[in-house]
Amino acid sequence: MTKTLAELAQCLGGRVVGDPEATVRGLGTLDDAGEGQITFLANPRYAGKVATCRATAVVLPPGAEGYGRNVIEVANPYLAFAKLLQIFHVEPRKALGVMAGAHIGADVRLGAEVTIHPGATVMDGAILGNRVTLYPGVVLYPGVVVGDDVTLHANVTVRERCRIGNRVIIHGGTVIGSDGFGYAPDGREWHKIPQIGIVVIEDDVEIGANAAIDRAALEVTRIGRGTKIDNLVQIAHNCVIGENCMIISQVGISGSTTLGDHVTLAGQVGVAGHLTIGDNAMVGAKSGIPGNLPAGSMVSGLPAFAHRDWLKAMAVVPRLPELRKTISTLEKRIAQLEEAVKREA
Amino acid sequence: MTKTLAELAQCLGGRVVGDPEATVRGLGTLDDAGEGQITFLANPRYAGKVATCRATAVVLPPGAEGYGRNVIEVANPYLAFAKLLQIFHVEPRKALGVMAGAHIGADVRLGAEVTIHPGATVMDGAILGNRVTLYPGVVLYPGVVVGDDVTLHANVTVRERCRIGNRVIIHGGTVIGSDGFGYAPDGREWHKIPQIGIVVIEDDVEIGANAAIDRAALEVTRIGRGTKIDNLVQIAHNCVIGENCMIISQVGISGSTTLGDHVTLAGQVGVAGHLTIGDNAMVGAKSGIPGNLPAGSMVSGLPAFAHRDWLKAMAVVPRLPELRKTISTLEKRIAQLEEAVKREA
Amino acid sequence: MTKTLAELAQCLGGRVVGDPEATVRGLGTLDDAGEGQITFLANPRYAGKVATCRATAVVLPPGAEGYGRNVIEVANPYLAFAKLLQIFHVEPRKALGVMAGAHIGADVRLGAEVTIHPGATVMDGAILGNRVTLYPGVVLYPGVVVGDDVTLHANVTVRERCRIGNRVIIHGGTVIGSDGFGYAPDGREWHKIPQIGIVVIEDDVEIGANAAIDRAALEVTRIGRGTKIDNLVQIAHNCVIGENCMIISQVGISGSTTLGDHVTLAGQVGVAGHLTIGDNAMVGAKSGIPGNLPAGSMVSGLPAFAHRDWLKAMAVVPRLPELRKTISTLEKRIAQLEEAVKREA
Repeated sequence: MTKTLAELAQCLGGRVVGDPEATVRGLGTLDDAGEGQITFLANPRYAGKVATCRATAVVLPPGAEGYGRNVIEVANPYLAFAKLLQIFHVEPRKALGVMAGAHIGADVRLGAEVTIHPGATVMDGAILGNRVTLYPGVVLYPGVVVGDDVTLHANVTVRERCRIGNRVIIHGGTVIGSDGFGYAPDGREWHKIPQIGIVVIEDDVEIGANAAIDRAALEVTRIGRGTKIDNLVQIAHNCVIGENCMIISQVGISGSTTLGDHVTLAGQVGVAGHLTIGDNAMVGAKSGIPGNLPAGSMVSGLPAFAHRDWLKAMAVVPRLPELRKTISTLEKRIAQLEEAVKREA
Repeated sequence: MTKTLAELAQCLGGRVVGDPEATVRGLGTLDDAGEGQITFLANPRYAGKVATCRATAVVLPPGAEGYGRNVIEVANPYLAFAKLLQIFHVEPRKALGVMAGAHIGADVRLGAEVTIHPGATVMDGAILGNRVTLYPGVVLYPGVVVGDDVTLHANVTVRERCRIGNRVIIHGGTVIGSDGFGYAPDGREWHKIPQIGIVVIEDDVEIGANAAIDRAALEVTRIGRGTKIDNLVQIAHNCVIGENCMIISQVGISGSTTLGDHVTLAGQVGVAGHLTIGDNAMVGAKSGIPGNLPAGSMVSGLPAFAHRDWLKAMAVVPRLPELRKTISTLEKRIAQLEEAVKREA
Repeated sequence: MTKTLAELAQCLGGRVVGDPEATVRGLGTLDDAGEGQITFLANPRYAGKVATCRATAVVLPPGAEGYGRNVIEVANPYLAFAKLLQIFHVEPRKALGVMAGAHIGADVRLGAEVTIHPGATVMDGAILGNRVTLYPGVVLYPGVVVGDDVTLHANVTVRERCRIGNRVIIHGGTVIGSDGFGYAPDGREWHKIPQIGIVVIEDDVEIGANAAIDRAALEVTRIGRGTKIDNLVQIAHNCVIGENCMIISQVGISGSTTLGDHVTLAGQVGVAGHLTIGDNAMVGAKSGIPGNLPAGSMVSGLPAFAHRDWLKAMAVVPRLPELRKTISTLEKRIAQLEEAVKREA
């Protein structure tokens, strides 16, 4: 595939500085890109490399020095890079229909241009939108509803009646709608509380590999529009996750907790149950959240407190043995002083 | 389905106060339940809502004020709620037999009324009890033994010769009997130690999604009767887990560790290997357990110590920078005092 | 199977002390082994048991007391145990070919003596070496390349174009080559950056159950030769893991981090992104690594510092409330001293 800079500028919403008829047929990094390739400057730290790179064109932010090169100027070069990858390196999807070896139950409704690979199973009454791809080993339980332009990778499981929005991607092995972990104790044994709710995954959500999102006890576990969830994340029953959150790998969120929009939970964070985490809150890696967080919080630690204070406190931790010794020494010096003062009195 | 209060009271082991012939056909929360529904009071904090709720009947603990409503009095209303959900909302299981697209090996013995979905595989010599359900993608390796009334959800893997008891539920993607992580070093490389033991899952165990329970090196990794294990939990080779334990999401238990009965490990806890954790021990979320715990322990922290003491210690952590400054100031004041005392002496 | 001690000594690279024609047909522990079995002494602590054990022969390190028994002397008895298990307890693999119910795409190349179980799927253009075993539910996406003597357990997913070396074992449910977690923000939403790189798994790697190893954004996520990875581990895009590392269960490694050779990460460790961890570094369980580690480091904590110092610092943590009280008392005593000294002046 070959594109002129004029064509690319239009796709990227940018403007050409230089030759709009110059053509490129791929992209590379500032270090690697050569003749016929386009590259980009995302980090101003590397601005000097624009002078020496060998690419046919460079995507730059407004005002950056182009060193006489062909430039496409865009507001957000990193975003442009994502779009260029899509243009040059992602093969357009081909619909293959229901392939031999796929298992389709009764009363299933399939949209247009679906691909259902061998070894995928769609159980009774499931409804699939247009351009849905189910890879081998995907299992949709009865009554699952899937929107348009959805990709479910190999061995994804979606349990009964759960609903997946449009443009959702779920990676291999992830389980949507497993039973919430709910038991009534009788003082001796645990009695299972049937989990009769569902999971709703809204539009434009992406979920990594081998994650687990439990169905609600009675109502809905919800993943809000545009939220991105990494591999091996656990989201317990009745959680409500807001829009455009970033939930990094191996995070665990306990039952009935609500996240606002644009919340970031770094890797291996744990959040207790029945909490409310405000919009734009950010939680540092491996932190444990025992209570509500107001919007805009930035916390770390186990249990977590303000990130800045945590950094300062953690700087003291390695010196605790020394501090303890100092205190012990001070105690002795004070005792001697007290003795001396008493003698003089 | 419609039930009289008299019928329900019998199922729940309770007694009716009010009209035993009143009928209900579903259940709801204190806030939501309406005419024809039954609700329950589990938390005394909400006792006032019993007066204003619109349900046909309320399940109450002995002695709670019924405000003139139809009441079923039971010792444990939360447990009654679990049973009511089962009665009204869980469809009775239908046996579908070995469905087209299921793969059954040689010398397999199947009990009565099984359902083996398309895409499930039962390898040679496996033995299944009565009323077993295998969802699509379940793989039973050769020689696996499964009891009665077992449900294995989609894409569960059970490795060779492992044994699953009666009334066990395992959620999607979980792997039972993967090789333990055992290698002999030669100073340069790691040599695999064949893991020839098995996993035994006793009766009434439930295991969440995408968990991993490794087979023993030589003998048995055992999950005791009635224990409940959440999603993404890791249990290493040769562990012996007691009865009726609660092991919350993302916990990891290292090899050859023994848990007593009724042990609770909260989310993301890590337990070192070759330890003994006593009955009824409780470990707070994200804690790390480096040594044995006596029965009845309640610990938190990394490494863990008494939970109460941990709470107090953690309250000091954010103030460490301040304490350090205080110590430094005290040091100067003492030096000045020493100077003053010396001058006077 | 029956072997003479002379035959076994040759397999193990050791020498017989005693009767080279004595035969054994299995192995057991020092406590359990009986007539016709061989046992081994790995831990010098149990040397006394050699005198009283009932085994036909004992594998001992050079110089250990044999108490008149038949002995095979080897440099590393634990390694010998691994080999003996292989000899006596691991059934030789039988090639079963492409079994009915397996799905093989177009332009697939299969080596000699493969076993592809029912329910496994090999998509278009994949290349498999000799003696490869794919269990049910394994999915190889288009263009995957697999070496010789590889075993992929049930429900393993390998995404497009990833490459698996020779003698690799991957346990159930693991996903190789899922998309890296890469998004470009526009201030409001997250735009997916297509992940067009691959994963390369080198020779002699073993990966546990339900792990996730993401493909690189542009180039290669690499797992070095001989490295062993436990269950539920997360390795993010563009990581380069060295040779013969040990990565224990539930570890998470963030994007673009490089590990040297022989690195050990204990359970539930988290490593931040874009770091370099030197050869032979060891990280204690549950630690968080925020920065580079030089070769030979031994660290623990969150954030981690020298393991020895961490042990000492953690010993102080439970005493923090007491230290705080001491400081407060010292403050008062100093104030009184200052008062006294001032009065006298």
